[in-house]
Amino acid sequence: MPTDSSCSRLHGIVPPIVTPLAGRDELDLPGLGRLVEHLIAGGVHGMFVLGTTGEAPGLSHRLRHEMVRETLRLVRGRVPVIVGITDTSFTESVELAAVAAAAGAAAVVALTPYYFPAAQPELNDYLDDLCAELPLPLFLYNFPALSKLWWELPTVERAMQNPKIAGIKDSSGDMIYVHGLLRLARGRADWSVFVGPEELTAEAVMLGAHGGINAGANLFPSLYVDLYNAAAAGELEKVRRLQPRVLEIAAELYTVGKHKSSLIKGVKCALSLLGICGDQMAEPLRAFREPERDEVRRRMLKLGLLPP
Amino acid sequence: MPTDSSCSRLHGIVPPIVTPLAGRDELDLPGLGRLVEHLIAGGVHGMFVLGTTGEAPGLSHRLRHEMVRETLRLVRGRVPVIVGITDTSFTESVELAAVAAAAGAAAVVALTPYYFPAAQPELNDYLDDLCAELPLPLFLYNFPALSKLWWELPTVERAMQNPKIAGIKDSSGDMIYVHGLLRLARGRADWSVFVGPEELTAEAVMLGAHGGINAGANLFPSLYVDLYNAAAAGELEKVRRLQPRVLEIAAELYTVGKHKSSLIKGVKCALSLLGICGDQMAEPLRAFREPERDEVRRRMLKLGLLPP
Amino acid sequence: MPTDSSCSRLHGIVPPIVTPLAGRDELDLPGLGRLVEHLIAGGVHGMFVLGTTGEAPGLSHRLRHEMVRETLRLVRGRVPVIVGITDTSFTESVELAAVAAAAGAAAVVALTPYYFPAAQPELNDYLDDLCAELPLPLFLYNFPALSKLWWELPTVERAMQNPKIAGIKDSSGDMIYVHGLLRLARGRADWSVFVGPEELTAEAVMLGAHGGINAGANLFPSLYVDLYNAAAAGELEKVRRLQPRVLEIAAELYTVGKHKSSLIKGVKCALSLLGICGDQMAEPLRAFREPERDEVRRRMLKLGLLPP
Amino acid sequence: MPTDSSCSRLHGIVPPIVTPLAGRDELDLPGLGRLVEHLIAGGVHGMFVLGTTGEAPGLSHRLRHEMVRETLRLVRGRVPVIVGITDTSFTESVELAAVAAAAGAAAVVALTPYYFPAAQPELNDYLDDLCAELPLPLFLYNFPALSKLWWELPTVERAMQNPKIAGIKDSSGDMIYVHGLLRLARGRADWSVFVGPEELTAEAVMLGAHGGINAGANLFPSLYVDLYNAAAAGELEKVRRLQPRVLEIAAELYTVGKHKSSLIKGVKCALSLLGICGDQMAEPLRAFREPERDEVRRRMLKLGLLPP
Repeated sequence: MPTDSSCSRLHGIVPPIVTPLAGRDELDLPGLGRLVEHLIAGGVHGMFVLGTTGEAPGLSHRLRHEMVRETLRLVRGRVPVIVGITDTSFTESVELAAVAAAAGAAAVVALTPYYFPAAQPELNDYLDDLCAELPLPLFLYNFPALSKLWWELPTVERAMQNPKIAGIKDSSGDMIYVHGLLRLARGRADWSVFVGPEELTAEAVMLGAHGGINAGANLFPSLYVDLYNAAAAGELEKVRRLQPRVLEIAAELYTVGKHKSSLIKGVKCALSLLGICGDQMAEPLRAFREPERDEVRRRMLKLGLLPP
Repeated sequence: MPTDSSCSRLHGIVPPIVTPLAGRDELDLPGLGRLVEHLIAGGVHGMFVLGTTGEAPGLSHRLRHEMVRETLRLVRGRVPVIVGITDTSFTESVELAAVAAAAGAAAVVALTPYYFPAAQPELNDYLDDLCAELPLPLFLYNFPALSKLWWELPTVERAMQNPKIAGIKDSSGDMIYVHGLLRLARGRADWSVFVGPEELTAEAVMLGAHGGINAGANLFPSLYVDLYNAAAAGELEKVRRLQPRVLEIAAELYTVGKHKSSLIKGVKCALSLLGICGDQMAEPLRAFREPERDEVRRRMLKLGLLPP
Repeated sequence: MPTDSSCSRLHGIVPPIVTPLAGRDELDLPGLGRLVEHLIAGGVHGMFVLGTTGEAPGLSHRLRHEMVRETLRLVRGRVPVIVGITDTSFTESVELAAVAAAAGAAAVVALTPYYFPAAQPELNDYLDDLCAELPLPLFLYNFPALSKLWWELPTVERAMQNPKIAGIKDSSGDMIYVHGLLRLARGRADWSVFVGPEELTAEAVMLGAHGGINAGANLFPSLYVDLYNAAAAGELEKVRRLQPRVLEIAAELYTVGKHKSSLIKGVKCALSLLGICGDQMAEPLRAFREPERDEVRRRMLKLGLLPP
Repeated sequence: MPTDSSCSRLHGIVPPIVTPLAGRDELDLPGLGRLVEHLIAGGVHGMFVLGTTGEAPGLSHRLRHEMVRETLRLVRGRVPVIVGITDTSFTESVELAAVAAAAGAAAVVALTPYYFPAAQPELNDYLDDLCAELPLPLFLYNFPALSKLWWELPTVERAMQNPKIAGIKDSSGDMIYVHGLLRLARGRADWSVFVGPEELTAEAVMLGAHGGINAGANLFPSLYVDLYNAAAAGELEKVRRLQPRVLEIAAELYTVGKHKSSLIKGVKCALSLLGICGDQMAEPLRAFREPERDEVRRRMLKLGLLPP
């Protein structure tokens, strides 16, 4: 992994890459190639395959395996790739981790189990069981809006005693929780804290976080990298100049349509308007229909994000 | 399917059968055989494989397929078998339905998609897409405590226009919603409404529902069948005599331990104490440890559910 | 209090009466008089003043006191009146109870405290403190949708040891909880269990509950009394005939408009269309505007609830 | 009001002061006097009376009025005082505002109505109705954890068109929402955005917010004032040095005991250990018992917040 100034932590902007689709259960390989090159050209510090933005739970296991292998092949070791292994089935998660390791991934990432509502002591057991089977370091992924469960702070504290667990990505949007994670992080020099919501990356990094796993970095990677660099360097004025641009992108591009799927559909729709890959979604989601797509186009034009 | 007096509806007690496990990712075939015979001897009207009580989301797809094939083989057509195809991946659900059809299932059962929070119009699309691929009738499965989504009444009303959709199982515990389903059910003679929580089967059936998909029927099938028959016949006195027994089972056997997993662990633990199958759980759950197991035993003895 | 066949429990249909308003902070006394006579003529077994349907939290304390005094004056002892004393302030609750006692109320009714999220042990303390100050028996009121807190079953069980606490009204809509209450109720012959949602009164009473505190009984008291009597007598056929009428009223009259206030606005609007009292609401609610009012009228005509 | 460099906005640290009690429904006037002097000596920019930390909903209206009058009297115009008028009754809120105006308050503060779950269009009406009756500027107060309702961004945007509404305090802990408020705030030079959770004040102020209404500022006002000043001046290094102290206070002093009341009890308990006022709570809360009080003392000693 790339190292930050003081240690071997994964850090920086690690986009949760979308899964370009050519059809139901069919990968769009040319689109994936363009996306990978777009991100590398934008200076990202890593990539996260099979996250929520990657629609992982909506993909067949066959396609998930293919996506892992192809992304690693296309990246060619230029940046570290981490792979989501979240699944309701333990056995399928372990299988995904084996595929990730064989393909050369740097680490795997797991949400809390998310169908049966496990209690925190049950999550401790689960992590013990899972780590015993993993060939790679594990990042925890906290996304209670979708999984309905938190990796609560005492559970994280216990997990930090396991050297195989390398860090956490928090998508709760709860900065008080993030500050709790940062307090814990002082106890382990090789532990990373990433934040998911791009609106919060700058302040989190200024106050000690190690990076952002931000959906919008699929679209405009260099903007997110610049903002991260400014925050990591403590350049508050530059943060104040760049952050509103990120807030604007999130407020405009992720809010078309009335449903909670607006963010994930918005990212894929904007990628398609940028000519990077198509906007086909995995069920149960469908791509925006023409009116929503037009609205995304209008907003991108207004923000100067598309050539007129 | 067995018919009720006036039509071809599936009806009666259809236990959501547990998945007996011999190890991680390994079916306990002798246990499954004993369970099937226990249920048939108890007079059940059907079986539901790969529901929540069957820990379906926790099983690998390979094991789910095996469980479907083996259960159908063991049942030998004596009662109809319906098969859960709930999955976060559409492609995997369709594959499960194909396996179910090939094995001789009567219908399939699907929860709302449960990772991405779909809106009701998105659920309409999802049902259209799904039904286009299904070789068997579909039952809707409503379990908002776990899926975080409802099949809302207008969505159910629209679904009833699709002859491929055959009924609904509600595990919300919300009898007002059930009464709404029963109002809709008057519009289609071949539509079934089942309730999940065994505490509510009697009143629902007295007021128009068609049966119960009750976890406790794994344990004491004839009690649930007797209660169903009394309710369907309008024998209120008999209902008042039998229902407290069911309430007692639920209140005592499903409340050992402090976590939300108490019900599902309690059922498997009690089955193991009855000598029907082991209590191994699929991760992220683990079987009760000795103190909880002892407590389940004590309560079963107290209720006269185990020979002293 | 009126007694049921075997004991001195409050029982039957006890409408949670609306608070007729002539203006902001001004009681509509003639309307209240007509409402009281309408209910008594309909055969109700009691009245509940200052509940949620009575918009109690939205009224000034001065007006709440006036409403209690005037209702008791108008009822003239013909049926027992119970009075809601729910308030975020303990001192104001105690003051309301004193007013109720002085006016001749039979009992008072209290929700869980509902601003600060008290834990169950804190509710135990709260009940002890409250009962020490009360001049009248207390009914618990469970309405977690609004108060965000349950009187959990162990808390109710502990409360039943206090002879000053006389019963519970449950508006959760959760029949499993109601069955839990009914199990506890077997331990105290003078304890009453009432259900709030009118859709559930019949089944609850058939299986052991003592009555219904149903909003719709403001409108059509004799229908609710007839349904209660049929359920209490175990006349299942009559229940099956009358209950759909109640379900229809709830499904049609309480669902106009898009907001959660539809029920409470619907009841007051329908009362106004019946000529009993006006539809002025206490802030933060406002009466339906003309289109919603017309829609309520249309639905009442369709159901034969208004003369054409 | 004190002005910040460019306009007449209320800004800085405005502690939500506790309500010192000498008994049930009895103010501790000497305690209140000590608290006021402690805060003024600590350099606070204003005071907020009758907020959540002030247990306002738990107090009788008589006591609320007294608390307003006495605080204003004791403050003697040295800093602006804003007064919570939140109540479930519109009439009582208006009465509280009249008392506040007569006593010399600078503004009033209102939560969303919090018993009846109003929809956003109903909140618009509510604000129109309320502002028509208010003699003072109004601050919105967003605290969905307790009120269960948000002032959603479009509702806030509409409210900003009313010159009588002067700003908003957000206690949601959701920094994405705060960034949304800050985007809106650019449209009105005399509009203030305050954050409630003290863990978030520094980052919010660095990125554009105007101050903090932080419970902990009751205890250690100068620390919060110093952190605010550093953040407002963009002194990131100083923020990084001071913020962990605030995080530590929140993590240690507000987490004793198991209930959600830990914060509010912790603040009053610590104030009592500091000799400022007693720890009597308004029902439904009770002061910590000896073990919890000892634990708070131990933690304060460990953090050097009490002389050994």
